[in-house]
Amino acid sequence: MLEKIEHIGIAVKDLEKSEALFNALLNQTPYKREVVESESVQTVFYQSGPNKIELLQALAPESAIAKYIDKKGEGIHHIAFAVDDIVAELARLKDAGFQLIHETPKEGADGKLIAFLHPKDTNGVLIELCMDKNK
Amino acid sequence: MLEKIEHIGIAVKDLEKSEALFNALLNQTPYKREVVESESVQTVFYQSGPNKIELLQALAPESAIAKYIDKKGEGIHHIAFAVDDIVAELARLKDAGFQLIHETPKEGADGKLIAFLHPKDTNGVLIELCMDKNK
Repeated sequence: MLEKIEHIGIAVKDLEKSEALFNALLNQTPYKREVVESESVQTVFYQSGPNKIELLQALAPESAIAKYIDKKGEGIHHIAFAVDDIVAELARLKDAGFQLIHETPKEGADGKLIAFLHPKDTNGVLIELCMDKNK
Repeated sequence: MLEKIEHIGIAVKDLEKSEALFNALLNQTPYKREVVESESVQTVFYQSGPNKIELLQALAPESAIAKYIDKKGEGIHHIAFAVDDIVAELARLKDAGFQLIHETPKEGADGKLIAFLHPKDTNGVLIELCMDKNK
């Protein structure tokens, strides 16, 4: 089951500048900053009630975030839904005809197991499923 | 205060097709469908825990949703944050240097008073503030 929007990921060019902007917007500072080496991204996370906002800046030109910004500009990169059982949910969605970018979950930022669906099946919206690793 | 992500708005070309897709993704059917005449859009809403997903289809070529799809294709159109006092929050954000598309709140879908911030100040992310009308 997709339980809620866990976070929204926003691709930014200049994290320092964007952080100042989101600090002002959300009236708070990030609760976490984390480099995800496997994705070549620097991230910061804000809490917004039950949801999070993740800003992502590429650390290398081959990063998916760098490629996204080259193609579409800065903006919302993905929506992540919290799931109670990521393996079961991936199986359900595959059976329903969705194309999976990751057939099995991988480690993501913020202590999560994650997997992405292919945006061609989801109206151009890149959708992530995520589950707490210690669940 | 921005309390949570109230909803994410997704611009779609063919609501019937996208509805079938989101029914499968979210494993549910919409709890509401509503035409917003002032915006020339047909909307449907899904609940995802504390959050909602809104699909928007243009009903006329001059609709903001039609223009968005022409320019950027289908995808995430806006993020709406729930606020406890929309007038106070607009004043706070204006003071903080954000450009407001709506200086005063207007009526939106789903029983809300709404106002948008200009995406040029927010990393290309169109941000809506919304508050229950009966609050």
